[in-house]
Amino acid sequence: MAQKPSIPKGTRDFNPEQVAKRNYIFQKIRYVFETFGFQPIETPSFENSETLMGKYGEEGDRLIFKILNSGDFLSKVDDVLYASKDSTKITSSLSEKALRYDLTVPFARYVVQHQNEIEFPFKRYQMQPVWRADRPQKGRFREFYQCDADVVGSKSLWQEVAFIQLYDTVFSALKLEDVTIKINNRKILSGIAEVIGASDKLIDFTVALDKLDKIGEVKVKEEMLSKGISEAGISKLQPLFTLTGSFESQLESLKSILSTSKEGLKGIKELEFINTAIKELSLQTATLQLDVTLARGLNYYTGAIFEVSAPKNVQMGSIGGGGRYDDLTGIFGLNDVSGVGISFGLDRIYLVLEELGLFPETVNKSIDVLFINFGIKEALFSLKAIKQLRIHGINSELYPDDDKMKKQMNHANKRGIPFVVLVGEQEMNSNTYTLKNMISGTQEKLNLDALIYHLK
Amino acid sequence: MAQKPSIPKGTRDFNPEQVAKRNYIFQKIRYVFETFGFQPIETPSFENSETLMGKYGEEGDRLIFKILNSGDFLSKVDDVLYASKDSTKITSSLSEKALRYDLTVPFARYVVQHQNEIEFPFKRYQMQPVWRADRPQKGRFREFYQCDADVVGSKSLWQEVAFIQLYDTVFSALKLEDVTIKINNRKILSGIAEVIGASDKLIDFTVALDKLDKIGEVKVKEEMLSKGISEAGISKLQPLFTLTGSFESQLESLKSILSTSKEGLKGIKELEFINTAIKELSLQTATLQLDVTLARGLNYYTGAIFEVSAPKNVQMGSIGGGGRYDDLTGIFGLNDVSGVGISFGLDRIYLVLEELGLFPETVNKSIDVLFINFGIKEALFSLKAIKQLRIHGINSELYPDDDKMKKQMNHANKRGIPFVVLVGEQEMNSNTYTLKNMISGTQEKLNLDALIYHLK
Repeated sequence: MAQKPSIPKGTRDFNPEQVAKRNYIFQKIRYVFETFGFQPIETPSFENSETLMGKYGEEGDRLIFKILNSGDFLSKVDDVLYASKDSTKITSSLSEKALRYDLTVPFARYVVQHQNEIEFPFKRYQMQPVWRADRPQKGRFREFYQCDADVVGSKSLWQEVAFIQLYDTVFSALKLEDVTIKINNRKILSGIAEVIGASDKLIDFTVALDKLDKIGEVKVKEEMLSKGISEAGISKLQPLFTLTGSFESQLESLKSILSTSKEGLKGIKELEFINTAIKELSLQTATLQLDVTLARGLNYYTGAIFEVSAPKNVQMGSIGGGGRYDDLTGIFGLNDVSGVGISFGLDRIYLVLEELGLFPETVNKSIDVLFINFGIKEALFSLKAIKQLRIHGINSELYPDDDKMKKQMNHANKRGIPFVVLVGEQEMNSNTYTLKNMISGTQEKLNLDALIYHLK
Repeated sequence: MAQKPSIPKGTRDFNPEQVAKRNYIFQKIRYVFETFGFQPIETPSFENSETLMGKYGEEGDRLIFKILNSGDFLSKVDDVLYASKDSTKITSSLSEKALRYDLTVPFARYVVQHQNEIEFPFKRYQMQPVWRADRPQKGRFREFYQCDADVVGSKSLWQEVAFIQLYDTVFSALKLEDVTIKINNRKILSGIAEVIGASDKLIDFTVALDKLDKIGEVKVKEEMLSKGISEAGISKLQPLFTLTGSFESQLESLKSILSTSKEGLKGIKELEFINTAIKELSLQTATLQLDVTLARGLNYYTGAIFEVSAPKNVQMGSIGGGGRYDDLTGIFGLNDVSGVGISFGLDRIYLVLEELGLFPETVNKSIDVLFINFGIKEALFSLKAIKQLRIHGINSELYPDDDKMKKQMNHANKRGIPFVVLVGEQEMNSNTYTLKNMISGTQEKLNLDALIYHLK
């Protein structure tokens, strides 16, 4: 009967310390989301399969976890189809529901389904787990949280400005200073593709450009060539590979490259607006940087594209990203609802804070005080004090058994409890409590008020 | 392409108001859990199937949501088995993982898997969703949250005392007064079964007795008879059906009924200990009540059994329950770890608070203030103030476009935003802000400090 217990690969148990640290990040993000006017929604863990399938490309469809139908599910499978034993074709007959793959598609579904109850522009945030049947590896899990904030129903560029401020505010609150908020604009990418005569190869072009950081200029050019972009076109890209200097001077260079592209110049104008506003409002600790190579693979962005990099002294990919998409809800029949949103990469932020030692020492506090148990009478006397301590928000408990004192003290030490209280005959008679500091070893006799005051 | 969007039956979307109200309950419970010394853990949403299957009975196995294996999953199904087209037999070949059905079994798995890292007694709480393929109906969902607190590794009855205090503290904090905490003890049920000569029919006996509230004395007796409990035995039960009066007087009656049962007398002694301690410590707003008919169907309880009833003026089943189980981790190979725990029924508590109007008015606050947008210059001026407001924890935003003022004011009204700020030429010149109260309609000109002071 006994089984050696384990959990599925790619999933994790979180112990109290890990939960406390994760909640620390969640709380900072949630607090900032709310001061910026975002409100929380939650959607079900599983959606109808047709809501998710086909929204993330072929690869995405494969990575979506499907839920097996209940009951005699095989009886509903067509006999001919069944005989084929074709996993791909048979899936939709075995499974009607699937686990959420991200928060964006369920959000789009939510907006369309509840459009009559929603007052637009609608600013929502959502912090929930998502699931992907990806090959698990270091830092990549099959169950992980996403933290998204989006506005739908507004084309105003003030939204982009607000999201940059929001990133800066969250990371400053987490004491994670010197993050870089990289920004680009899909219209600039379209403009460049147009200028080099590769408008019909925009996706291939951006996918290749996106890899510049990873594979370098030479290989990017090779990839573009292999996708059919002309030598002449690629040579026009040269200034892009060496674009440096301030946001403003990069924009100036882009203006000359893109002078013949209406779309490209529009993108530049948007970036100029955003950059000017951020300059005027100033960021706390983050830096805003133009990065024309930023494309983020996802091809639903239509305007701004964001990505946040951890401080340079940490080896870590992006810790956040997002952008503007002009027609996300169209797939569910509601057209012309522009949206813009960002996401925080919880697991990576966690690793960065851990590596830089930025979690506050108090984040994983054990209980504040343990009362040693010397027997029923003493326990009852102690519990009366504990009741008062808890009312004052002091996390406290009684050791459950009148075990040897050494064992009880060991328990306090192993749990890292900073104080214990000793209550014996003497204390009960004088209505006092002996408070022992477990680090310094000092102890003092206090009445209840003084005990509360001391522990608060 | 366009689909009419919907969600699977038995699941729910939660809008901002609902999330806020749910979080209000979660936060109160979490706060009390922590003052009582419980620490949070989290386990994965899905477990290996063998962790869950067989732990909840045949009915439970049916109600567990199974996840379809990925890739070419059919290629791994034995041809003969496949040809049988037998849904039940084939399931384990199609699915290796399943969604969490409750928090108790994953917790037991966690304790066994991490036993070497855990300092016992281990007090954990867990608030996560669970999934059941139950027929959805009013108040019963396929995805719902459980909020559990358990202690493992201690047989001390002080734990039972603490859980009663904990229930009282949570419901008092939620202003849900006059709940009844019903308590029983499995040993008393065993004792009674022994006395009436039905020790071998303990489960049948308790299942029938558990229904007393619902189907009444006559039908309970009929059910017992049909299960083979003798007329003579049932007649000995008579005093049970009419047991009334105080906790103490009921215990006295039980003592005489159970005088020949060692087990039964032990149960009485436990209840006496708990009742005396609670009397001594006193509860804030809840009442502790002995209920010998309480069995909670679940047959893994070995000591105390708890159930909490909503105040009598609300029609609602139990809003919480729990008990002591002496060998939960045995199924995973770790024996002799006694545990005791309780659970809060979030959805029902939500309904009760809603019905009694007990959610605080502030729980679903929109943003505190909306700045009206009169153009780029004004917006930038406003955003400088908004930045300061947010630092002071005031939830604020700029209306994203310089639409007609009426439209912007309508937006504020529809969202229930209590204040708007107007910034025009005049305000910018004098460095002031016109604050308008959206309820009273009054407005006043304030400098930034006064604005912050006013809105805080």
